[in-house]
Amino acid sequence: MERVAIIGASMTQFGRRESWIRELLAEAGTECLADAGVEGDAVDHLYVANMASGEFEGQTGIMNALAHDLDLLPAYTERVDQTSSSGGAGIYAAWRSVASGASEMSLLVGGEKMTHRSTAESTDIIASITHPVEYKHGVTLPSFAGLTARYYLDRFDAPRESLARVAAKNHKNGVDNPKAQFRKEVDVETILESPIVADPLRLYDFCPITDGSAALLFCPESVAKAHADEYVVVAGVDGATDTHVVHEREDPTTMAGVVESGKGAYELSGYGPEDVDVAELHDMFTILEFLQMEGLGFAEKGEAWKLVEEGYTEKDGELPINTSGGLKSKGHPLGASGVAQGVEIYEQLTGEAGPRQVDADVGLCCNVGGFGNCVITTIMEAAA
Amino acid sequence: MERVAIIGASMTQFGRRESWIRELLAEAGTECLADAGVEGDAVDHLYVANMASGEFEGQTGIMNALAHDLDLLPAYTERVDQTSSSGGAGIYAAWRSVASGASEMSLLVGGEKMTHRSTAESTDIIASITHPVEYKHGVTLPSFAGLTARYYLDRFDAPRESLARVAAKNHKNGVDNPKAQFRKEVDVETILESPIVADPLRLYDFCPITDGSAALLFCPESVAKAHADEYVVVAGVDGATDTHVVHEREDPTTMAGVVESGKGAYELSGYGPEDVDVAELHDMFTILEFLQMEGLGFAEKGEAWKLVEEGYTEKDGELPINTSGGLKSKGHPLGASGVAQGVEIYEQLTGEAGPRQVDADVGLCCNVGGFGNCVITTIMEAAA
Repeated sequence: MERVAIIGASMTQFGRRESWIRELLAEAGTECLADAGVEGDAVDHLYVANMASGEFEGQTGIMNALAHDLDLLPAYTERVDQTSSSGGAGIYAAWRSVASGASEMSLLVGGEKMTHRSTAESTDIIASITHPVEYKHGVTLPSFAGLTARYYLDRFDAPRESLARVAAKNHKNGVDNPKAQFRKEVDVETILESPIVADPLRLYDFCPITDGSAALLFCPESVAKAHADEYVVVAGVDGATDTHVVHEREDPTTMAGVVESGKGAYELSGYGPEDVDVAELHDMFTILEFLQMEGLGFAEKGEAWKLVEEGYTEKDGELPINTSGGLKSKGHPLGASGVAQGVEIYEQLTGEAGPRQVDADVGLCCNVGGFGNCVITTIMEAAA
Repeated sequence: MERVAIIGASMTQFGRRESWIRELLAEAGTECLADAGVEGDAVDHLYVANMASGEFEGQTGIMNALAHDLDLLPAYTERVDQTSSSGGAGIYAAWRSVASGASEMSLLVGGEKMTHRSTAESTDIIASITHPVEYKHGVTLPSFAGLTARYYLDRFDAPRESLARVAAKNHKNGVDNPKAQFRKEVDVETILESPIVADPLRLYDFCPITDGSAALLFCPESVAKAHADEYVVVAGVDGATDTHVVHEREDPTTMAGVVESGKGAYELSGYGPEDVDVAELHDMFTILEFLQMEGLGFAEKGEAWKLVEEGYTEKDGELPINTSGGLKSKGHPLGASGVAQGVEIYEQLTGEAGPRQVDADVGLCCNVGGFGNCVITTIMEAAA
């Protein structure tokens, strides 16, 4: 089977946008095609990663609208939803599309428009990801994060500050990302003194609500060679579920979806955790960065916090994590986030990351749906 | 590349159901695995074809819930949305999943729960498929059907009765389908005297609003041989878009999505229209059956109505169309419909169609999203 390449990447400004979802998707899609130097009529499949345009905006069929707006007809279109990991699911879908031979050029555009709704309305829509036995009693994703963080800190004797360091690091990285929602450093003291949301987690332990879109263009490696000087290869990708009801998990500090999808992606790629030079992890809540570091084999169980404290995951550390600023500072437009993780790894591997550039040949993205209900891990390598 | 087989099929009772979407999906999924004699732990990918569980029911993340309910963990899950052709898109997604080597056993479950909402509410949700320039002026899918039917009848000098014959035929076929929403014959006079909805189309030219779910199980043909005595092979499948704005189409009696997806599916399969023994077409509105017959090459342009009048598409005709009863009598739970088309073809090709059985080795399904905004055509053949 021929390897699947990525030859173009783009993302819109993340933040509070006046544009509607259709406009955001069209903006990212247009820029991605331009980035790759590919005309729309070469695209035969279009995947739109989006969780809830109907719920947020009352507009469905956005994949067909986008095919029209980008002048891609008669390309096949499909909307891919895997809640907050829809973007990662979109990467997996586009990969399968090319790997199966069904498509020679698949455009993936992820996006979400959220900020026009109140925080209460957004929370309601997002809470419906989880099991009714949870959200009907008011247990939302932030509550799970708080409970998990408390347990992690107690069990592994980790200081509260270590979580704040994740947020501080990612905010620092985000300063260098012109597309990020927040471009300001936030120090550990400010984080520790911010309002409590779900004890022990405070405001700055959470990602914001965001509008935005991101895009990637996939094709067989042979086609990539003809189109682009620089491209990346999707070396491995896999997805896996964990229990839908969080309290059924044996150990809430192990995210089985992360472990299983990581295992699959490593196996397909032939790489191991020690080969990864840069990673984008799903820091929707600071505690998740620890759990993914451990689930993916970057740290021993219960020890991710030590690596964070040592600076191991800083931009100039051994394994830079979330050089883009992460969901924390870049923002988290649900369907866009997993795609934007891929955009950052693409730019790092092709040397286009500007002030965020690190030295990397192999990169990894981990995109988490719900509270780990489904996770997609993707490993990319720079073209030889 | 190894061929992709289907080894199990099921559908729930279609109609007005007291169950919620999660229960409907679980019912079809459980029955499909039982039909194939496959345990849940063999399933590595789960696709849920569903347009709007969030909009209809306030519940998202249903693919993760279903993985949990069917005990499929850690199978990868994804929701596939292509509006009213989500089921056909699900078939295409499951096919790519196996064809790419990503999955050895992919379960597809399509479903929608609609009848608890008022007709006005359902119409609002469905209208949002189309372009805002259309639905904001009150032009919904039934209006397009009326306008297209008027034009077709005038242009091709076809009698109004020919449309009624489509509905009468499909209602007659539905009598033999125990899962159909309506199991009663309706004569041409009754159809022609039913209330006008969108002139010239009347109540009986339209499919109903329905709850229901359907499922199919996909694997490589080598795996199928080990699991099942009888199975079918997905010989060809493709999807294609047409303009999002209907008035931009050069000829409203040609559905470009049907033509293009049919072309792709024929090409991949090596079959032509003359090889098809039985077909399930998307008769959401009677006029669509004419347009698909012509777009797929079963009839010359402007002549499908003649074949229908001649009885060519009756159960005992040359090419039986909608032996299941079609969307017209079986019902149209959006995400389930395309999957249920596949279930009917599977049962016809494996000799399990009971009183609906016809003599068939090659079958075709055509699933239409929106008013032809995206169409998926699938061709299946009985295992040699």
